[in-house]
This record gives sequence, C-alpha cells and structure tokens, in this order.
Amino acid sequence: MADRIVVVGSIALDTLHTPHGSAEDCVGGSASYAAFAASYHAPVNLVAVVGTDFPQAARELFGQRKVDTEGLEVVEGQTFRWGGRYHEDMNRRDTLFTELNVFEDFHPKLPDSYRSSEVVFLANIHPALQMEVLEQVDAPRFTALDTMNLWIDIARDDLVKALGCIDLLFLNDEEAMQLSGEGNISSAVRALKAMGPKSVVVKKGEHGAVLFADGNEPYVQPTVLLESVVDPTGAGDAFAGGFLGHVARSGDASAETLRQAMVQGTVTASFTTEEFGPDRLVKLPEQEIDARREVLRRISAWPFA
Amino acid sequence: MADRIVVVGSIALDTLHTPHGSAEDCVGGSASYAAFAASYHAPVNLVAVVGTDFPQAARELFGQRKVDTEGLEVVEGQTFRWGGRYHEDMNRRDTLFTELNVFEDFHPKLPDSYRSSEVVFLANIHPALQMEVLEQVDAPRFTALDTMNLWIDIARDDLVKALGCIDLLFLNDEEAMQLSGEGNISSAVRALKAMGPKSVVVKKGEHGAVLFADGNEPYVQPTVLLESVVDPTGAGDAFAGGFLGHVARSGDASAETLRQAMVQGTVTASFTTEEFGPDRLVKLPEQEIDARREVLRRISAWPFA
Repeated sequence: MADRIVVVGSIALDTLHTPHGSAEDCVGGSASYAAFAASYHAPVNLVAVVGTDFPQAARELFGQRKVDTEGLEVVEGQTFRWGGRYHEDMNRRDTLFTELNVFEDFHPKLPDSYRSSEVVFLANIHPALQMEVLEQVDAPRFTALDTMNLWIDIARDDLVKALGCIDLLFLNDEEAMQLSGEGNISSAVRALKAMGPKSVVVKKGEHGAVLFADGNEPYVQPTVLLESVVDPTGAGDAFAGGFLGHVARSGDASAETLRQAMVQGTVTASFTTEEFGPDRLVKLPEQEIDARREVLRRISAWPFA
Repeated sequence: MADRIVVVGSIALDTLHTPHGSAEDCVGGSASYAAFAASYHAPVNLVAVVGTDFPQAARELFGQRKVDTEGLEVVEGQTFRWGGRYHEDMNRRDTLFTELNVFEDFHPKLPDSYRSSEVVFLANIHPALQMEVLEQVDAPRFTALDTMNLWIDIARDDLVKALGCIDLLFLNDEEAMQLSGEGNISSAVRALKAMGPKSVVVKKGEHGAVLFADGNEPYVQPTVLLESVVDPTGAGDAFAGGFLGHVARSGDASAETLRQAMVQGTVTASFTTEEFGPDRLVKLPEQEIDARREVLRRISAWPFA
C-alpha cells in the first residue's frame, strides 16, 4: 500500500475572471488543489476548515477523489472567499477581494488517524499554522512546505522557523530571491538550504521548474505546451500535490524519486489550467495522465544518440 | 567537409553596463556573436560593415575563429556603436545610445565565393537588408532569419516579405505574439508559419527555447543553470549561430538535426553570458562545449526507465 500524505492548507470559494470568462464560487485554496492532484498518486488526508455555507456539491468533490475528510473542520460561518482577475498576460493577476471568514481563527487539528502519515505537505498558509501541523505528526519520513511572498513580507520569522523543520521547500523564482536576499537562483538556493531544507524546488510557471536536491546536480523540468490556458489558478498547488503524491507512492525520497516527482507534478498540474477552478483536475482519467507524461517525454527527449 | 554558412548582420562596438561592471568598445552586433558561435560547428562566411576606426585587435578575433572576412566591408568613418545598461534583473535593459554611423548606408554585397553557401543566417538587421542577401545567394539548402521588436514596429511589410522566403524564423515569445497578433504561443506559431517559414524557434532567454519544426511535435529545450551571468549581450545571436552551425555541419535539416541544433545553440550561447562581450565565446576549448552538453543532458535526463 502507498504511503499516506497529509495535506494542510486553505479551502476557499473562488471568484475568477480570466480573459476566457468568469466563474463564481469555484472550490479553491491551496489544500484543495494540492489534495486533488495528490489523490491520483496516493491516499490523501485533508486538514482544513470550511464554513457551514460550504456547498454539499463542493464537498463531494473530495469524496469523488477519495480524499479523507475526517480532518476537514466545519465551523459556523462563511467559508474563506477569494476573488481575482487575470490580465491578458495570465502570468499577472489582481486580487479583487480576500474574505478570511472562518479561516481567521483556524488552528489545524489532526485526527489521531492522520498522525502516522508518512508524508506531510504544508500547502500555502500562514507558516505558524504550518508549524502547528508539524508538531502534531509522529515521525513523517518526508515533509514539504510551500509558501508565498505575503508570508515572506509579514511572517518571515515564523517562516524561517518552519524552514528549519522540513525536508523540501517549494517557492517561485522571485520568492527565492526575496526570501534569501540573493540576486540569482543558484546563490538563492544555497542560502535557502542553509536555513534548513535539504531540497528546494523553484517553480517557474509555464517555464517549468528546477529541483535542487540534496547533494545532487540540479534537475530542470520543462512543461508541456498547452493549446489554451483558461484559468491558471491552483497550478502551483497542484504541481506540489502531484509531486508529493509521487513521493508517497514511491515509498522513498531518493534523488531519482524526486526527479520523477517533478514530472508527475508537472503533468498533473498541466490539466488544472485547462478549465475553470478544479473542474478538470477532479475528473481526470488515469490514462490521460499517463498519455500526457508520454507527450512530455517525447517533446523533451534528448536528440543525440 | 561541412557545409558553409553565410552570416549577415551588424557589427558594433558596444559599451556595456551590467550589475557586474562595465566594458567599453566590446566587439558586438548580431553578426559577430552569431559568427563566433557558428564557427565552432562549421566554416563561416561573414557579411557586414565596419568603419576605418575598427581596431585591428577586434578584427583579429574573427581570424582567430577562422571566420572568412572577405565579405567584411570597411568604409571610411565610424563603426556602428551601441550602449546599454542592464537592470539588477538582467532580463531588462535600457539602450543608452545607438550610433548607426557606417551602418546607415550599408547594403550587403556577397563576394562571389559566398554565393554557393549551403546555409544562410540573416541575423538581426533591417529586413530589407536581409532580403538583399537572399537575392544574392544561389540555392541555399537552409535559410533562417532572426528579428526583433524594432523591425516589427517600423518595417513590418519588409519583414513579412522576407518571412515568405525563409525556412526558419527565430524570435522571442513577446515578438511572436506581437508579430502574429495572437495571445498564446501555439496560436502565434501557427500564424507565423502561415507567413512562410516551415519552422519557428521561440527563444525564452534563461528559460530555454521551443522548436516548432515542420509537421512535428514541438521540442522544448531547457538551458544550463549558470552560477553567474555577467553580461547577457549577444546570447540570442549566439544561440542562433550555434544552431545554424550545427545545421551546416550535419548536412541536412531533418527534425532530428534541428532538435540537435537546439542543444548546440543552447550550449554555445551559455558561455556568451559568462564574461563581458564575446570574451568567453571567442576562446572556447572544444572540449568545454562537449562537457557542457553532457551537463545539459544529465540535468534534463528523463527520470523514468
């Protein structure tokens, strides 16, 4: 049986505007995208909070993906809501509103059955909450953390403390330089590793990602080329979820496994952007994942004998 | 014997300011970088113009790389000069000055011995001059053109005319969208191919490049990760030069050869940025090119069996 992965993060109802249209009250948040993506690769234990307004249909998405929701707290009040509008260049977006609601007083509580999970993914939330989860797991064999510029700005001390307790850090190239104070990726990653994590994955969106694993040469991962990106929301969370799902399934965290996880994360995340919200990500036939991985292999195959 | 490649473009004396320092009167221009890079892979015939002030030491760089300079015109007056200042984020730069000088009245004249060259590279200059070169070659088996936003803005008709006469177009992602009027790369490339070129290479700087060859799946090429980028000037020209040098050396332009050319262009260009101007590019031991190609293979090797 595959190892289990516990995912903690946010669950939101998103209002999304992109050049391709709009959608309201999509299931969003870092934990949702990460859990859906991970669920194709390993059993997922979810830790998050929603309000009593969270629709039953939305909740059923987690059931469809066999995500364990014993750790999903339901609190009297409104679910966290986020609204965003993407530019023509969908690498840029403006936040229209952020209503924390029940998320404001959230403290993650792990059900007893989750404590022995072998893999832990601290998806993007306040680093103090990420630490609270680490304190509730027994002895996970692999822990990873994702973060964002907001926490580097307003909760840097908490973030640095959490970095001392994890195996792998996900962040994008700008965040790597912001958090390290270094001007290029190689120096930034050296500085970040000195803060704790043995491995760092630098996410570059449509340009792929780079893995700096413990003591190994970097590994550069290109992405598949999509005909059309409808909604980029959640792609980074889905990448990390797919990555860690593969680490759970593999039962180890060797350099080889982490490189394979880069591929699985990339492939799983690529579907996320093809429809609004998690619509495409929650109903993927397994053979489509396999087929797209084969496309990725072909379009990046080394051309020399 | 390898096929010969004729390179036409600009030769400049560059004044460069980067976060790593400054340098004056470096040999620059699209033809210089492309010719130096191509020279590691095939015999190069150079077509360009300099002024009587062009230093003998600068001229000797072409001799060191065995670039044929019969087509290098020397005209009474000053060489083309360009000055630029790079930001902390070296993907951005400001032009400080552009003095066309002898370049203003330049019309490329191919020596008779160049007319039978098998491969033609129209490096970045005014598209009307690129056309003049095409009219002077006999029957090249492969022709390629590089361009920039300036010509899309001020000489679009000439550029579109030239696109009708070439096999392969190099440009960056923003230029692809600007020239095609399309909002994503896939649609942009389809529109560009409809203008003439059978193949399009979209350059993405530090993020690599993508080849859209005739009738084939795209090919995505990541780059090597450099510890330090000292001066990005000329990297795109060197990429194209290395690419076409490989096409000349291979004697064909199959999809396989073009994919290999993506690797050779990437590897050759990677050295360009490590020192100011072409300093590193003109004195590369061949075994360093081979060693870096091997690094690129390793850091991007498919991790599944």
